[in-house]
Amino acid sequence: MEAKAPSESRTTLTDLVLPSETNPLNNLFGGELLARMDRAASIAARRHSRRIVVTASVNHVAFNKAIPLGSVVTVEAAVSRAFKSSMEIYIDVWVEDRESGRRTKANEAIYTFVAVDETGTPIQIPALEPESEIEKQRFEAALRRKQLSLVLAGKMKPAEATELKALFEE
Amino acid sequence: MEAKAPSESRTTLTDLVLPSETNPLNNLFGGELLARMDRAASIAARRHSRRIVVTASVNHVAFNKAIPLGSVVTVEAAVSRAFKSSMEIYIDVWVEDRESGRRTKANEAIYTFVAVDETGTPIQIPALEPESEIEKQRFEAALRRKQLSLVLAGKMKPAEATELKALFEE
Amino acid sequence: MEAKAPSESRTTLTDLVLPSETNPLNNLFGGELLARMDRAASIAARRHSRRIVVTASVNHVAFNKAIPLGSVVTVEAAVSRAFKSSMEIYIDVWVEDRESGRRTKANEAIYTFVAVDETGTPIQIPALEPESEIEKQRFEAALRRKQLSLVLAGKMKPAEATELKALFEE
Amino acid sequence: MEAKAPSESRTTLTDLVLPSETNPLNNLFGGELLARMDRAASIAARRHSRRIVVTASVNHVAFNKAIPLGSVVTVEAAVSRAFKSSMEIYIDVWVEDRESGRRTKANEAIYTFVAVDETGTPIQIPALEPESEIEKQRFEAALRRKQLSLVLAGKMKPAEATELKALFEE
Amino acid sequence: MEAKAPSESRTTLTDLVLPSETNPLNNLFGGELLARMDRAASIAARRHSRRIVVTASVNHVAFNKAIPLGSVVTVEAAVSRAFKSSMEIYIDVWVEDRESGRRTKANEAIYTFVAVDETGTPIQIPALEPESEIEKQRFEAALRRKQLSLVLAGKMKPAEATELKALFEE
Amino acid sequence: MEAKAPSESRTTLTDLVLPSETNPLNNLFGGELLARMDRAASIAARRHSRRIVVTASVNHVAFNKAIPLGSVVTVEAAVSRAFKSSMEIYIDVWVEDRESGRRTKANEAIYTFVAVDETGTPIQIPALEPESEIEKQRFEAALRRKQLSLVLAGKMKPAEATELKALFEE
Repeated sequence: MEAKAPSESRTTLTDLVLPSETNPLNNLFGGELLARMDRAASIAARRHSRRIVVTASVNHVAFNKAIPLGSVVTVEAAVSRAFKSSMEIYIDVWVEDRESGRRTKANEAIYTFVAVDETGTPIQIPALEPESEIEKQRFEAALRRKQLSLVLAGKMKPAEATELKALFEE
Repeated sequence: MEAKAPSESRTTLTDLVLPSETNPLNNLFGGELLARMDRAASIAARRHSRRIVVTASVNHVAFNKAIPLGSVVTVEAAVSRAFKSSMEIYIDVWVEDRESGRRTKANEAIYTFVAVDETGTPIQIPALEPESEIEKQRFEAALRRKQLSLVLAGKMKPAEATELKALFEE
Repeated sequence: MEAKAPSESRTTLTDLVLPSETNPLNNLFGGELLARMDRAASIAARRHSRRIVVTASVNHVAFNKAIPLGSVVTVEAAVSRAFKSSMEIYIDVWVEDRESGRRTKANEAIYTFVAVDETGTPIQIPALEPESEIEKQRFEAALRRKQLSLVLAGKMKPAEATELKALFEE
Repeated sequence: MEAKAPSESRTTLTDLVLPSETNPLNNLFGGELLARMDRAASIAARRHSRRIVVTASVNHVAFNKAIPLGSVVTVEAAVSRAFKSSMEIYIDVWVEDRESGRRTKANEAIYTFVAVDETGTPIQIPALEPESEIEKQRFEAALRRKQLSLVLAGKMKPAEATELKALFEE
Repeated sequence: MEAKAPSESRTTLTDLVLPSETNPLNNLFGGELLARMDRAASIAARRHSRRIVVTASVNHVAFNKAIPLGSVVTVEAAVSRAFKSSMEIYIDVWVEDRESGRRTKANEAIYTFVAVDETGTPIQIPALEPESEIEKQRFEAALRRKQLSLVLAGKMKPAEATELKALFEE
Repeated sequence: MEAKAPSESRTTLTDLVLPSETNPLNNLFGGELLARMDRAASIAARRHSRRIVVTASVNHVAFNKAIPLGSVVTVEAAVSRAFKSSMEIYIDVWVEDRESGRRTKANEAIYTFVAVDETGTPIQIPALEPESEIEKQRFEAALRRKQLSLVLAGKMKPAEATELKALFEE
């Protein structure tokens, strides 16, 4: 299988915030944003693997910026690193101000998907070859995140998470 | 403000998995589950604080078990620790087999909510007093998770995250 | 088949009232509440019978209390009596005030479900054994309601509805 | 206020049964049908009263006929009797077979709505003058149903429900 | 196959405009109205042909009148002309003012559907025999519209579209 | 007001086809696609004008290609010509095959939006300056389409529609 670039899986989902998706402050529900990001990320994972894909995990997500009713929200997802059958998807969320047209970063999130066959068994996928500078940074960081994920799941001993350990040893 | 027990905020959302919520393998979309957990957690946060609440962050979530179409899914959320204006909500997800009636754990997740006033400004909330053994464990672990969250957000230096650092130092 | 207690089928569905579910007075549509009660009741019926279940009838429902936008509504359903293949489900609806945290009764309703096999044929189910005082009262009253239902459907002559007739003979 | 005929409030809602509205036997959920009937009935009540209307109660509803996925369902609602500020709405539900085109009766239901002003206070409405034979029958029967409803709500003693009592005295 | 009258396919879909369907001016989204018209038209096409039907095209639609939140909208669709396997459906949209009860025309639209068998292959359908004056006018005009459609699709040379050409030759 | 390029309004909405959006052949409903195109087009119109926008009309749309359940559909919209307060939006719809990854054109459509102020009054917008070859072609053709639209609406005599008339005079 030939390696692919992140641009081959990049997926853009631009849509409005409707009244049925907002909380009492008239901002987009966190849960609704999580669901939109999952849809965009699943399409990116499918574009990279050309397989059925299922959500395996969601990394820590922080909601720093409220997104008001009527906003235009753009969710942009692309594969940031491919492992044997799993893919890390990096998601950027932008929100636009109608009057100024200014687009500001509202969120970032990282989801992991697994490619499976019709019976649900994990299946091998192509490698990812990052191209731009930011794609290379995200590719490198993905390994550290995978270790953190394994540690949190109790599948790797903290002491073996060499990439991660370094962080705490200055 | 008087401290409250987790039982005072415990929230149960039992519902079916419908066809419009499933992926090509006929299992519940990860994003849909994230949204249901957000709704249950927001109600728990509101019950503890009696304020408007907004999602601040979602900790790492792993999807270990597929949840098939037609399942009965129970999402149970309760405040696990209260800070100044933020609350950690611990969420347990159960799925039931129709024929045997057996209920198995499908997921765990941890969301953080902030209580705000009508203008969106954070506002003080009651403390949490854990009662059962598991509530006490979750209460203790919440501090470690808060440090990890601050480190990941770049708001605390890894070296200062004493609770967390201990993990990597055996 | 062993008899079961109402607690074994008790089902709790706690959720918010969203803007797409409200009428011009900003209160929950009656029809939307009827649909939520049906979902909770169908899960209770399924928990008791461990079978596919279908709605057979809905008793008289009165909407005494408006439920405003943004409320937290709790629908609690449990089997109140089991007949050969049909079950009466008693549903209590509570609504919470965000500021005081006070929970008030908003509605009661009674649905009947039938357990069926894969071809839709009715199939025998376990008996119900009420435990608490209120469960026993609801169990007793269920017989009278079943007679009323048969009379209204023209399947029983009013004169034979002994339980019911007593009501009109003081 | 001038009396109106049932034809002036008659409301028809013909729509498809979609996959997200069906149970494991691929038939329309009872709760979904209750919600559609509520929408049609609320429009009929509004057409008669030209006021904001809210659901007051639903009479006993029996689901005698399963309505399969992909069916065309017609819900037809019209005011059957007007009281001071409340209206009884009679609803007929039809389902069509695609191949034969045959339309069969699937359900009947009776909802009661109250007309209110902007503050939610009940307000007087026009009388109803039935025209056809069936409209006259439904108009007569409405009084008996109102008594039953008052008895069930504990607002009328069974012995005073003269219309109803007659039923049990042969 | 016997010819049918437009009345045999006439389909009425009366429903409310809900908050989740409105734009920032609190009027029904154009796209939402297009979807409702498609549902009503598909039922009319199915009633005429008693076959599975799929949308083939939508003629020019103008949105002349805003439809506010809370309105009662009536979509009325009927087959206006049948060709070999395709049908033109004429759709009238009415909106009602709650206080005056006045019903005004909000839109007209013309959709074309094709009847197909289980494999998606077009299949012959009955002819249409118009009865009323307006049905006859719409039947005549349908031919001119079909030519315009073929010209726009590049399947007919403008010079051959005799019906249409006449329009531009005074 | 400075003229803008089509690239400044280009809007991409990539999403899955879910079971609740499909017809009996398991293909996307025409009406659902019309609604998605309206949402994407309204965002493009808003990005060009930085105003509230409302759908004014939809040109002839042909559905040439069925879009199956589970497909990834990309709707791409951009302003193709700006008039005084109205904009023509050109929409391209692509569908992807999961296994081959091949993206094929499924539809084209043209919507017109009007920019309005808070009271709904039309308001002036920037001009559009096409850049690429295809943008220039669509810009030219937009004038002819506007004439056709005026003729169909009875607001321009066919004989005055010089651009359009030319089509029929070879």
